[in-house]
Amino acid sequence: MSSVPPIAFSAKARRTAEQPISYLIAVAKANPQLISFAAGLVDPLTLPTEETLAIAQRILSDKDRARDALQYGTTVGYKPLRDAIVRHLEQLEGKPAAAMSISADNVVLTTGSQQALYILADILLDPGDIVIIESPSYFVYAGALSSFGARIIGVPMDRDGMAVEELDKLLHRLESHGELPRVKAIYCQSYFQNPTGLTLSLPRRPRLVEIARKYSRQHRILIIEDAAYRELLYDGEALPSIKSFDPTNSMVASCYTFDKPFAAGIKTGYAVLPPDVAREFTEQKGNHDFGSSHLCQQIAYEALADGSYSRHLTELHDAYRAKRDVMLAAMEKYMPAHPQVQWTTASGGLYVWLSLPLAVNTSRNGGMFDRALGEGVMYVPGEYCFQPDEHGHVPQNHMRLCYAVTPIEQIETGIERLASIVRRALVPAEPARAAQDSLTL
Amino acid sequence: MSSVPPIAFSAKARRTAEQPISYLIAVAKANPQLISFAAGLVDPLTLPTEETLAIAQRILSDKDRARDALQYGTTVGYKPLRDAIVRHLEQLEGKPAAAMSISADNVVLTTGSQQALYILADILLDPGDIVIIESPSYFVYAGALSSFGARIIGVPMDRDGMAVEELDKLLHRLESHGELPRVKAIYCQSYFQNPTGLTLSLPRRPRLVEIARKYSRQHRILIIEDAAYRELLYDGEALPSIKSFDPTNSMVASCYTFDKPFAAGIKTGYAVLPPDVAREFTEQKGNHDFGSSHLCQQIAYEALADGSYSRHLTELHDAYRAKRDVMLAAMEKYMPAHPQVQWTTASGGLYVWLSLPLAVNTSRNGGMFDRALGEGVMYVPGEYCFQPDEHGHVPQNHMRLCYAVTPIEQIETGIERLASIVRRALVPAEPARAAQDSLTL
Repeated sequence: MSSVPPIAFSAKARRTAEQPISYLIAVAKANPQLISFAAGLVDPLTLPTEETLAIAQRILSDKDRARDALQYGTTVGYKPLRDAIVRHLEQLEGKPAAAMSISADNVVLTTGSQQALYILADILLDPGDIVIIESPSYFVYAGALSSFGARIIGVPMDRDGMAVEELDKLLHRLESHGELPRVKAIYCQSYFQNPTGLTLSLPRRPRLVEIARKYSRQHRILIIEDAAYRELLYDGEALPSIKSFDPTNSMVASCYTFDKPFAAGIKTGYAVLPPDVAREFTEQKGNHDFGSSHLCQQIAYEALADGSYSRHLTELHDAYRAKRDVMLAAMEKYMPAHPQVQWTTASGGLYVWLSLPLAVNTSRNGGMFDRALGEGVMYVPGEYCFQPDEHGHVPQNHMRLCYAVTPIEQIETGIERLASIVRRALVPAEPARAAQDSLTL
Repeated sequence: MSSVPPIAFSAKARRTAEQPISYLIAVAKANPQLISFAAGLVDPLTLPTEETLAIAQRILSDKDRARDALQYGTTVGYKPLRDAIVRHLEQLEGKPAAAMSISADNVVLTTGSQQALYILADILLDPGDIVIIESPSYFVYAGALSSFGARIIGVPMDRDGMAVEELDKLLHRLESHGELPRVKAIYCQSYFQNPTGLTLSLPRRPRLVEIARKYSRQHRILIIEDAAYRELLYDGEALPSIKSFDPTNSMVASCYTFDKPFAAGIKTGYAVLPPDVAREFTEQKGNHDFGSSHLCQQIAYEALADGSYSRHLTELHDAYRAKRDVMLAAMEKYMPAHPQVQWTTASGGLYVWLSLPLAVNTSRNGGMFDRALGEGVMYVPGEYCFQPDEHGHVPQNHMRLCYAVTPIEQIETGIERLASIVRRALVPAEPARAAQDSLTL
């Protein structure tokens, strides 16, 4: 390589940084005895091995069916699956698809929901465009948005999810600064957000659509609804999606996946899109890959059609609920009682978000992270989940704790270790605040 | 939708046109009795249904193995498969991987070879950058390159593939015009090119690497080698890849697929990359989708490991060779004897490229295309495969004929119909040229 000059990579490649999670995965691999609350994978013990075997046998032992599954599919995806998804959405929303102006034509299959989110960015964003996201938010998508040269602006969250009235104020400010023409999208994880586990409350859902519509002056500001965790609901109330409050199917692009609720290995997700967005999305996906694995889409279809998807979900709920309960019980038991040691308790998803006093530094280079590793436990530093403020600062007093992959019998020990590290890191208590305001999330 | 303003799509989305093949697919679907030589799919009768069933059963009936396959994989791809690919490449090239400076670290799994080609464009191209391709070339990739705002310049082909000395002259011209800094890549389909079926001759392979290296002044000009059809070799000599003439693994990025030689439905391809390109490529793919289906990668691995891949290839060769022979025999039998009615005869791949006198118009709106449809036969107009010249003109006197999907018993009838249409379209013979020069391809 020394005799050749360097590659002149594209501006986008130069804006693409290694995902911080890669480092965490490498650390976990090198330390198999580590109790890791960092990995955002799915619980391997919950994977539907028997169901998928039965489905694969059914598809592949019927010659015609097998030939169809092993042939190329279309870019937009397997039609029976798109039909089944529409029926599935009707069940989830409790209303007919027509009431949301949705048909199979509005559904595009993707390689996981990540690809759906990515292609939405690809068709929307030019360098300098603005995307508004929750603060904190899903760091992988924030990294992808940055690769497009987007300006990412965070809106604070509280216990009810994105503070939509703050969003309204933000958009108003952007408008008064003449920046509204650059605002392309509002990214919202509507269920059990990664990293906080928080869910957008019911009243905020139609309000979010209303706000996006209000500021859609010369062009439409699209709401990108990430509903990847929607069906990981262990107790409490099932909420209709943001999209369900978009009766003309014009304001919201919703992204789902079969990876979390069924099997990550089939890497099959989908987007439910307004017609004009669906058209551009599909053309772009044609360039990307011409369509995701047809075999995997047929497996997803069979899982929906034969009921193994919903049966599997019930098992999954039991397994994750138990893990969540163990983690929350251990948090209660071991975490020091301190007004600024707080954590979220979600009715679904995979995450607990732990907030510590400002003086505690959870960042990768802050000491505590290495201390935790030394004591055999790993978390995701919360700093990854925030956008830097105008001084380049991000909050460094949070942790994302995922209970999905950790064996249930290790969770209590892991939290005990972590709590001990937290206790030692606590300086004498800061004066208690009146309340945990949104910024302390 | 009427009450909301339009979406402000990205510049890239605005540069993304519907692939012309979409229209052809729609026409074929609407006319199931049509004899189509247009579809570039694989022959459904050759698909390895029994092999894939056996593999799926093996993977999914072993609980641990099944859990691994149904879990997320890594972005770069399944390690045992990357190792197996390196051994497979050693067999294909007839030399050790070390002689090409290749290891599993240089192999990245993708969603078909299309995604590999796409991500290479994504990490290399800014608007205005130049990519040199064969003329004619694979229209889907040309469309993708255009979406990046790339300037695409064609190099003529002759019976030995890309005319590399013409490439040398082109690069020299670009350099003298100060445009060399914009040249990022040379795209070459090294085996049984789509659309012509032509293969880059052995002596031209090292010469191509030499030329790319020579003009890599301030930055490296990467050769993107599309080897998707490499293993569809029915008779004749197996050639080493362009990459095999890049001993330091610095000049060539090669793209392969399991879709054509094994099963399109698993949509699994791979790229073999210089280390710096592999790094950027993997980071970018992390943003795109985090990694392709782990289950499909494990199926591909098993197919390589248990020998079903190579056994299947033998069957595939027999099936495609028979179809090619029927098509070529029918061309000989029915096509009018005319000095400017010529076609390629390839020892592999899926395509025959038919060249007609300049006065004959094969384009979608040229009359002949609809006449052919009316008589129950479809081809791909050659116009799609060329870049417009400075006057916006493209050659309109070619057809791409694919024998892959057409049932073998329909091929002769289809060619007979087409030949009859061609005969009627021939104006009194133009004066015969001294030889078919490269431009008439």
